[in-house]
Amino acid sequence: MTGVKTKEDLVDVTPHEVRAAYAEGAYAGDTWGLASGFLQTAVVSVPRDAALDFFTFCQRNVLSCPVLEVLEAGEAKVRYLADADIRNSLGRYRIFRDGQCVEERDEVTSWWRQDLVTFLIGCTGSFEPYLMSRGIDLPDARQGLVTPVYKTDRDAVAAGVFRGPLAVSMRQIDPALISRVVQITSRFPAFHGPPVHVGDPTGLGITDLELPYAGDVPSLRDDWLPVFWACSVTPQLAAVDSRVPFLISNAPGFMFLGDLRTEDMSVLA
Amino acid sequence: MTGVKTKEDLVDVTPHEVRAAYAEGAYAGDTWGLASGFLQTAVVSVPRDAALDFFTFCQRNVLSCPVLEVLEAGEAKVRYLADADIRNSLGRYRIFRDGQCVEERDEVTSWWRQDLVTFLIGCTGSFEPYLMSRGIDLPDARQGLVTPVYKTDRDAVAAGVFRGPLAVSMRQIDPALISRVVQITSRFPAFHGPPVHVGDPTGLGITDLELPYAGDVPSLRDDWLPVFWACSVTPQLAAVDSRVPFLISNAPGFMFLGDLRTEDMSVLA
Repeated sequence: MTGVKTKEDLVDVTPHEVRAAYAEGAYAGDTWGLASGFLQTAVVSVPRDAALDFFTFCQRNVLSCPVLEVLEAGEAKVRYLADADIRNSLGRYRIFRDGQCVEERDEVTSWWRQDLVTFLIGCTGSFEPYLMSRGIDLPDARQGLVTPVYKTDRDAVAAGVFRGPLAVSMRQIDPALISRVVQITSRFPAFHGPPVHVGDPTGLGITDLELPYAGDVPSLRDDWLPVFWACSVTPQLAAVDSRVPFLISNAPGFMFLGDLRTEDMSVLA
Repeated sequence: MTGVKTKEDLVDVTPHEVRAAYAEGAYAGDTWGLASGFLQTAVVSVPRDAALDFFTFCQRNVLSCPVLEVLEAGEAKVRYLADADIRNSLGRYRIFRDGQCVEERDEVTSWWRQDLVTFLIGCTGSFEPYLMSRGIDLPDARQGLVTPVYKTDRDAVAAGVFRGPLAVSMRQIDPALISRVVQITSRFPAFHGPPVHVGDPTGLGITDLELPYAGDVPSLRDDWLPVFWACSVTPQLAAVDSRVPFLISNAPGFMFLGDLRTEDMSVLA
């Protein structure tokens, strides 16, 4: 260990520096807000036997599951989003057997298997710093909180053994800026695109915004609206609920940081 | 057979009517310009053993290979883009063994196998009528010609056994309208998005626009520019070149017609 770093130390650095800080054990916190301006992804590794069905699940739920890179069976090297080893580039992994989380670890090299196919799935964490740079205030994100995620009462479209609820992330937005937020995020299908729902959480079956499934409890403002995006926790829930015999994922809030800039993933310049 | 229909009979009808005309043998021509305003896809069916690698090839070449629906192994029923049987909804299929086309048929019911995984891949044929409705003149398309496709000297990104050249479609565009064409097509990543190349074909290794790999020979205008889009012939070339033991695809120009409207696939309304 070369020294303990704080989240503040890692906001204005390259993704490579964040990945190195994790690999060296110099930082153990979440990735929310780190390496500002670069893309973040969720990570799901499943055995090859289940990979085609999982990939099909992602295609059928493309708003939740924008697949940005696939590592072929046994491959641990990320090639397109970055030059990195997926086994030690994340801050925290979860290992599942038959749908049960059996361990959390800061690297999974010794758990790696030659039949694992790995999916990197775009995350809205990629566009939070970008939204803020465009004048959209996100007070919780600005203070380093991890954006909350909720399960909804809507089902994702099933594929093979994979099925489960649609999960959403939530940000509160100034009513005057909601149109601008829709415009900006629509340009980023790689990071879940535009909101799936604006306003009343009960329309998604969410009864209490202060009880997220993952992430931090948001500070709520009566004069702003909750705005919901499809979330890459959706495929993770489906992968876990399917009880595939073995599965590795990132822990919520601990994303993979790629070397591509968020703004370069826009479908319109 | 209920009677012989011409292309003109099938321009302003629903996709269902075109699929029925094929299934009944009432029409045997290509789909270019038919059921104007609805989406069109290429079709590739590969054995399950090869399907994960093929899907990964598509993800790595997403401009060429926007996967819009996947039918699980043995499934013949399209569920999301339409309610249709993929085995008899197309006008012409090609059947390949070990990379050799062994037969062209107007239905493949008797050739179907329980291990076939089917990919429906967005096609630029979907946006030609839309471009024309927005004031972009496409003289060849207007006259019912099939848009030409060329092999380039660029390699697609390989995945497993799948590799091959990038294929492109070409339309000539009035120089004053090229910006508008880029803007409109950028909103449709489902149909290959914006052009990959504007102007000089030799930049793509294309030496003679009058010798397309597929489609009709274009009528060339010196005062307009050739504009090139990534093309769903790319995954078909890779699938054939990989010499998978068995493969079914649509014949060039004979696309699957879905029930969704092109304009509804826009990432920005």
